[in-house]
Amino acid sequence: MSKYERHIFICTNRRAEDNTKGCCARNGAEAIRAAFKEAVFERGLKGKVRANQAGCLDACSFGPAVVVYPEGIWYRVPSPEDAVEIVEKHLVKGEIVERLVIPRSWAKE
Amino acid sequence: MSKYERHIFICTNRRAEDNTKGCCARNGAEAIRAAFKEAVFERGLKGKVRANQAGCLDACSFGPAVVVYPEGIWYRVPSPEDAVEIVEKHLVKGEIVERLVIPRSWAKE
Repeated sequence: MSKYERHIFICTNRRAEDNTKGCCARNGAEAIRAAFKEAVFERGLKGKVRANQAGCLDACSFGPAVVVYPEGIWYRVPSPEDAVEIVEKHLVKGEIVERLVIPRSWAKE
Repeated sequence: MSKYERHIFICTNRRAEDNTKGCCARNGAEAIRAAFKEAVFERGLKGKVRANQAGCLDACSFGPAVVVYPEGIWYRVPSPEDAVEIVEKHLVKGEIVERLVIPRSWAKE
């Protein structure tokens, strides 16, 4: 048994400004992480769900990138409102937010 | 389908020197992370397994703390040799390294 029902990892990796690969930090990942933490707390999920900082998830082109375990669902989360939607739909109701799921084809790259 | 067969998250969180809670960084977490990455590469698991940096996993008293998804197995990993053992046994053979598993009772705290 794992400690958490769901464990969300949010990439907050920061690369140098001139790195052409970009990075999730530059795309607002810290605000996304804060939105996840706050929404988890507000929905009474603290202790059951953890919104965790993570280093590079190697999904840079979709950043800010997020993965939810144990399901292993990968999301691109462009705004804090999207983070709240993932918490309300996926984490509370168990409904995957398809419009934000990183395309399955990417997983085979 | 997730991008990785297994995704290892290694806490490398660093707290202030005078913080009594301690931190995984002070207990050698960066060397543990390097050992995981190297062992994953050497066993030909690159692309299938990712050894990822993570922020605080809230298992500070067992640090360096590690969690392997999708199984959700939590390990304390005191030395780089232990990281290599987890890669060889758990990730290659699918055998959980029981002596390093963080006690299940902790998950209910």
